[in-house]
Amino acid sequence: MAAPELISPRSPRVVAARRLARRNFRVKERRFIAEGPQAVREAVEHRGDGGRPTLIELFATAEAMERYADIVAAARATGARIHPAADEVVAGISQTVTPQGLVGVCGFLDRPFEEIIKARPRLVAVLAHVRDPGNAGTVLRCADAAGADAVVLTDASVDLYNPKTVRASVGSVFHLPVAVGVPVEQAVRGLRAAGSRIVAADGSGERDLDTELDEGVLGRPTVWIFGNEAWGLPEETRALADEVVRVPLHGRAESLNLATAAAVCLYASARAQRAPGGCRSVTSS
Amino acid sequence: MAAPELISPRSPRVVAARRLARRNFRVKERRFIAEGPQAVREAVEHRGDGGRPTLIELFATAEAMERYADIVAAARATGARIHPAADEVVAGISQTVTPQGLVGVCGFLDRPFEEIIKARPRLVAVLAHVRDPGNAGTVLRCADAAGADAVVLTDASVDLYNPKTVRASVGSVFHLPVAVGVPVEQAVRGLRAAGSRIVAADGSGERDLDTELDEGVLGRPTVWIFGNEAWGLPEETRALADEVVRVPLHGRAESLNLATAAAVCLYASARAQRAPGGCRSVTSS
Repeated sequence: MAAPELISPRSPRVVAARRLARRNFRVKERRFIAEGPQAVREAVEHRGDGGRPTLIELFATAEAMERYADIVAAARATGARIHPAADEVVAGISQTVTPQGLVGVCGFLDRPFEEIIKARPRLVAVLAHVRDPGNAGTVLRCADAAGADAVVLTDASVDLYNPKTVRASVGSVFHLPVAVGVPVEQAVRGLRAAGSRIVAADGSGERDLDTELDEGVLGRPTVWIFGNEAWGLPEETRALADEVVRVPLHGRAESLNLATAAAVCLYASARAQRAPGGCRSVTSS
Repeated sequence: MAAPELISPRSPRVVAARRLARRNFRVKERRFIAEGPQAVREAVEHRGDGGRPTLIELFATAEAMERYADIVAAARATGARIHPAADEVVAGISQTVTPQGLVGVCGFLDRPFEEIIKARPRLVAVLAHVRDPGNAGTVLRCADAAGADAVVLTDASVDLYNPKTVRASVGSVFHLPVAVGVPVEQAVRGLRAAGSRIVAADGSGERDLDTELDEGVLGRPTVWIFGNEAWGLPEETRALADEVVRVPLHGRAESLNLATAAAVCLYASARAQRAPGGCRSVTSS
């Protein structure tokens, strides 16, 4: 079989895809990059408004076309444009050392905050001042794993479509509704009106997570607000919450990192909400 | 006051300290590097066998000597040699961009495995196949935060004294006893004989963490074995455990990363062991 003709590195398609490494181009085009077979597979299956496929274009090396023939075929079936490309072209778009030969151009997939509220979610993670893209992606992955119904990135948090965020989410960016750019006051007001209790996670909290579990309050619909690892949450954000809760530090560590603290909080909620006999939620409302 | 004379970049002390970036030199000298004021402060307070101070030498820029005068004075009081040094010298030893002007040379502080067993620990984290130094440090920090009595790094895991491990532990390397280089079979045998139940954390586990909590078994002295994020634990390591347990994935995420999974497991144990009324541990032994 003849090798497919490779797209030129100077093609407008390649140039446009490479530009998506920069936030202003992402916002302008409302597109972002998904790297590697796992993320591309998720993108292929994802649908946006009106059933519109999220994957728009796929750049693939000859080796990847063969190895991931199923993904490429599925991408083609959704109407995505497939571009056979040289290794350097794929690597140049993804800006990673090992994109495994596949990068996809995807349409933005964040959901309107109103839609999230209307679904009356039982567990939501609000990322209020998260500046590190890797941390944001990892917390998104934890929220997904813990069965959260949605994630909100406030206007003071990192960009959802930063390649490092997408990568660290390990596919979770495609798994649950995410709203972006919502001011934290609006997020809290809207979610509280939808029936949730608002809990700010902060090392300075007077209550600890064990007290929350003992009192059975985590069985209720809950919104966790997470902040920046180094700073915690600013006073004005803590003041918006119904409760400021810390993860107890039993040993001599002075803190946990953001992702591990978020995992402990979100899994405490998951358990309290799912195992009625588990954590004294007999006393919960 | 006259500025103190700076140590020469070609001084044998500087050359010896720089070499500690490499494992073979660390093992030969039984010394490692602690970077930045927080880690150096911990090192100053730490004592090894027979009360021997862990901090041996301190390299400090003129600015750091002034800003962290309390740390420098405390270091001097323990008998550590203080070397005023140029910024480049401090940065060269630490290999980080921002060591904040302080790097310390410390003696190894791992403890004999026998000593850990004799203390009959109630909660231990065994890092069995952890290859990423940052992950190892983060799990160490989580174990400290969750109140674990000890950590064991098996012979198949990353070096405790890798600068990235020390850095990611955020001081926890100085907080709790750590044994290194123990074959996993020996770790399991010794800790089981000391009264612990052995639980391997692995995504393939047939039991999930909620079942463990429901049955109250986590109230007992527990050893958690954690493996490599990508591979999980090999079959022969899982076979050593009394139980293989997975963190439940309620959403669509296919896995958690090692540090977040370890945090959820260790905090589940901490709660079960510390809050007798909390998680049905009325039924535990």
